[in-house]
Amino acid sequence: MTLLWSQTARELSPYVPGEQPRIADLVKLNTNESPFGPSPLALEAMRSAASDALRLYPDPEATELRAALADRHGLKPGQVFVGNGSDEVLAHAFVALLKQSRKLLFPDVTYSFYAVWAQLFGIACEAVPLDDTMHVRVDDYRRTAGSIVIANPNAPTGIALPRAEIARLLQEHPDIPVLIDEAYVDFGGESAVPLIADHPNLLVVQTMSKSRALAGLRVGYALGDVGLIEALRRVKDSFNSYPLGRIAQAGATASVRDEAYFRDTCARVVTARQAMTQALAGLGMVVLPSSANFVFARHPARGGPDLAAALRERAVLVRHFNKPRTAPYLRITVGTEDDTRRLIAALMDILDISVTNADR
Amino acid sequence: MTLLWSQTARELSPYVPGEQPRIADLVKLNTNESPFGPSPLALEAMRSAASDALRLYPDPEATELRAALADRHGLKPGQVFVGNGSDEVLAHAFVALLKQSRKLLFPDVTYSFYAVWAQLFGIACEAVPLDDTMHVRVDDYRRTAGSIVIANPNAPTGIALPRAEIARLLQEHPDIPVLIDEAYVDFGGESAVPLIADHPNLLVVQTMSKSRALAGLRVGYALGDVGLIEALRRVKDSFNSYPLGRIAQAGATASVRDEAYFRDTCARVVTARQAMTQALAGLGMVVLPSSANFVFARHPARGGPDLAAALRERAVLVRHFNKPRTAPYLRITVGTEDDTRRLIAALMDILDISVTNADR
Repeated sequence: MTLLWSQTARELSPYVPGEQPRIADLVKLNTNESPFGPSPLALEAMRSAASDALRLYPDPEATELRAALADRHGLKPGQVFVGNGSDEVLAHAFVALLKQSRKLLFPDVTYSFYAVWAQLFGIACEAVPLDDTMHVRVDDYRRTAGSIVIANPNAPTGIALPRAEIARLLQEHPDIPVLIDEAYVDFGGESAVPLIADHPNLLVVQTMSKSRALAGLRVGYALGDVGLIEALRRVKDSFNSYPLGRIAQAGATASVRDEAYFRDTCARVVTARQAMTQALAGLGMVVLPSSANFVFARHPARGGPDLAAALRERAVLVRHFNKPRTAPYLRITVGTEDDTRRLIAALMDILDISVTNADR
Repeated sequence: MTLLWSQTARELSPYVPGEQPRIADLVKLNTNESPFGPSPLALEAMRSAASDALRLYPDPEATELRAALADRHGLKPGQVFVGNGSDEVLAHAFVALLKQSRKLLFPDVTYSFYAVWAQLFGIACEAVPLDDTMHVRVDDYRRTAGSIVIANPNAPTGIALPRAEIARLLQEHPDIPVLIDEAYVDFGGESAVPLIADHPNLLVVQTMSKSRALAGLRVGYALGDVGLIEALRRVKDSFNSYPLGRIAQAGATASVRDEAYFRDTCARVVTARQAMTQALAGLGMVVLPSSANFVFARHPARGGPDLAAALRERAVLVRHFNKPRTAPYLRITVGTEDDTRRLIAALMDILDISVTNADR
């Protein structure tokens, strides 16, 4: 079967996304989706865009969407790059910027797609261990590097670095591309975007899949100096001229312009995260301090695989990463109040805790 | 500016897509879009998909869409791969299959993105000249090769090879990947899909942008042996797990299922192409025999750049490729009857032909 494959295809170890099962009445807390729908204005814009105009190619520059994002972030359109989900944006950044003659650094526990892109594009990389409390330590990045990528908040830990720490990282590495992947920043993290003005080597990547509840639309973007954005454009225009369709551009633009809905839904996720964290702690679970729309939690006496399987039997789906440092943990998405109630009930059942014992 | 760029980003010569200008009342015949809208059933499916369910990731396997395409083409779902426009599908095929230790062959006059992907992915390639009549000659491909890609009908000539010629090419190259890019096949070409059963090295790529009038949605696909499809999947899952959003999957599936609308609109484009070809010939233009939704035509006495500019002054946009063999020609998309009327009127004005002289 593989005789006709390229060497690259043979050597790949693809990324494995979280399941998208079709099970009725499932509590789906495994892929960090928003419990709320997208902005109603975005839905309306998408329905309008589903018209005969779809016979025409979309704007390859996504002019309106980039203008809306530039407005939103206090930047110029030339500092904005958009793509088919932040995964595509990140992939292009790996090719255009992070592929250097020296090694790419990233944490040992982080978004597992980084290592997959490094392999696909032939980028030598080095994992920098998180400290014992699962935090990124900027001091540990004081080493020779060709480029750096850090998820902030980090995934799957949910732990955020303050902006001042990112600034310190940039000061120590002024001459190499530094990518901060802010997929989860809108749930309480400090964005590095204000640092762009003083750091032409900083690229910030964000997504509309989490805080804007548009995982099903596929829109992500990068913010940074025009020089970095130009490199991304060159790779994009050598790969696929039209990554974002007309409906995606219309929906994403309307979403970015609906600031009130965005702030309200993010705030509700933060409140729900606090409630879920407290409830999990009440069951004796150890919960890492999360600034994301998920928590990373473990039970002192029960293994991660065991808990994940037991939850699945009770129609509650969470994510488990079977690597040495992450194996004890479950990554649990913040869902609706009802989702949390059912999660806690399932855990009480598994852990054999009666209602009176649990601090609810 | 380029100090932070990768070597790859510095060396690229990106593809230049046709313009998408925002000029009112333009006759837009430059990017081979359909003059008709998408299937009304596809529009309805897309509007329904613009719902709160967009908060969820799409099916990474595009199960329904692949099943619909398999049905349509008499194949199994495992023989179908889908992506974000056929450009993305082709890009993945270059990485997964066409990148071999020996050279990739393609015609000297063809889709200009092939050379761009070859550069992006570091694939050595060799251009095989079309014959004097701008036809692909299969005999010219009797040479050592690592892989082959041929657009059929070819672009921008519009000239098609019969299926029997593709079969001959496959017989001569049974051990290397052969990709037939059928972006324009639905307008009168013979598809190579029936050859898939006997040729595990054949990959056929098609698009929904032309014959299904969904250029603004971004959906393309590949058909071939499960082994080839598996290689594409591995590259896709190492690049972007979710290339097609929920709305794109819903719209594309409904379009594939609306066979009647598809056949009707394709037939109308073919009729319009015949009328346009005749009208252009009546003005003394030389028109290559097209099986696509465009024609490639030149005037014996007027240069291509000159004619394209004069048409543009008259608000008629056509495509011109300024390379030695293509410079005399214009690539003109088949539009509505009114588009053709305005194109011919503009050309008569430019060529100083009065109505009585022209065979209309």
